[in-house]
Amino acid sequence: MSSGTIHELTALLSRLPGIGKRTAARLVFHLLDADTDYVRHLGATVAALPDKIFRCAICGNLDESNPCHLCADPSRDATLICVVERIPDLWAVETGGTFRGRYHVLHGLLSPLDGVGPDDLNLALLHQNVTAQQVREVIVATRPSVEGEATALLIQQTLADTGVAVSRIAAGVPHGSEIEYTDARTLERALADRKAM
Amino acid sequence: MSSGTIHELTALLSRLPGIGKRTAARLVFHLLDADTDYVRHLGATVAALPDKIFRCAICGNLDESNPCHLCADPSRDATLICVVERIPDLWAVETGGTFRGRYHVLHGLLSPLDGVGPDDLNLALLHQNVTAQQVREVIVATRPSVEGEATALLIQQTLADTGVAVSRIAAGVPHGSEIEYTDARTLERALADRKAM
Repeated sequence: MSSGTIHELTALLSRLPGIGKRTAARLVFHLLDADTDYVRHLGATVAALPDKIFRCAICGNLDESNPCHLCADPSRDATLICVVERIPDLWAVETGGTFRGRYHVLHGLLSPLDGVGPDDLNLALLHQNVTAQQVREVIVATRPSVEGEATALLIQQTLADTGVAVSRIAAGVPHGSEIEYTDARTLERALADRKAM
Repeated sequence: MSSGTIHELTALLSRLPGIGKRTAARLVFHLLDADTDYVRHLGATVAALPDKIFRCAICGNLDESNPCHLCADPSRDATLICVVERIPDLWAVETGGTFRGRYHVLHGLLSPLDGVGPDDLNLALLHQNVTAQQVREVIVATRPSVEGEATALLIQQTLADTGVAVSRIAAGVPHGSEIEYTDARTLERALADRKAM
């Protein structure tokens, strides 16, 4: 149907999440027609990614420096740690702009059926950081699901001997959503976790 | 929110069609976590695109060679030319696999309001190819729209002195679609262009 390079790039792009064969072909066509400086810059930036990004030895974040810019920022509260499953979750919390503590990235959730056990979640490092930094509170921001709750419980147990306060983000009806269209499980949680006004 | 490279790549990716800021961030995260050989290969392939792809001097196709592999293929019928607006249209016809002639890519449609006039559509080259290759038929496969029809008429006029047969792809109800949900203009065309059974 098309030349080697075009075919190859279409195949490479269609391995990305949410990008099927048709979308990949459309992207390739766009790149064929796009400003050449932009195309070269995009390609070089992608190719350089593996050499530029490191996993932070303190929190597990992926960044250009190790420790990452969040762990290296002295203005952030090192005694407050927010535990997240994945990097995009960290980005989502950061976008809010109200959390000024540090993070711990699990890179997964406890899921024995998928072969993810307690040893795969980097909890020894979390325990070590909590002790070394005299952390006062660990906020577990894993998703409200079976795996997320199991992971939260595991974190609580793992940190029990440190005496640190372990808290869990609230589960409930999302801001701005319609009660009518909220699923039964979410409404059940929202009712059970109701707060006095 | 994130490091320089991550931020830069997110910005570069969100300039692609159909990719917003959130999708770009998701792609970047995927690349951070992906096999490094794949990421380097993808980046290098994108970066090399402008140096590897040329516009075919015969038909206007974009390919790794000039003339393109379609024009260079001796098994294709050089006396039959299919005129398309854009490269993806050529790919779509090729995917069908039944057309074994050659192509002419206009890289646009006649659209005076958008500043695209007859001189912008590479018709002199088409005229020259039709004469030189003793072409017997030119099939105009531009879309059934005001611009597509105007372009088809212009091509017919441009080639009038060559004596070549100029045809137009059929407009009508798409294969497999429901008559009930077909728009009025398409049904009108399908009725007007009805064929004896």
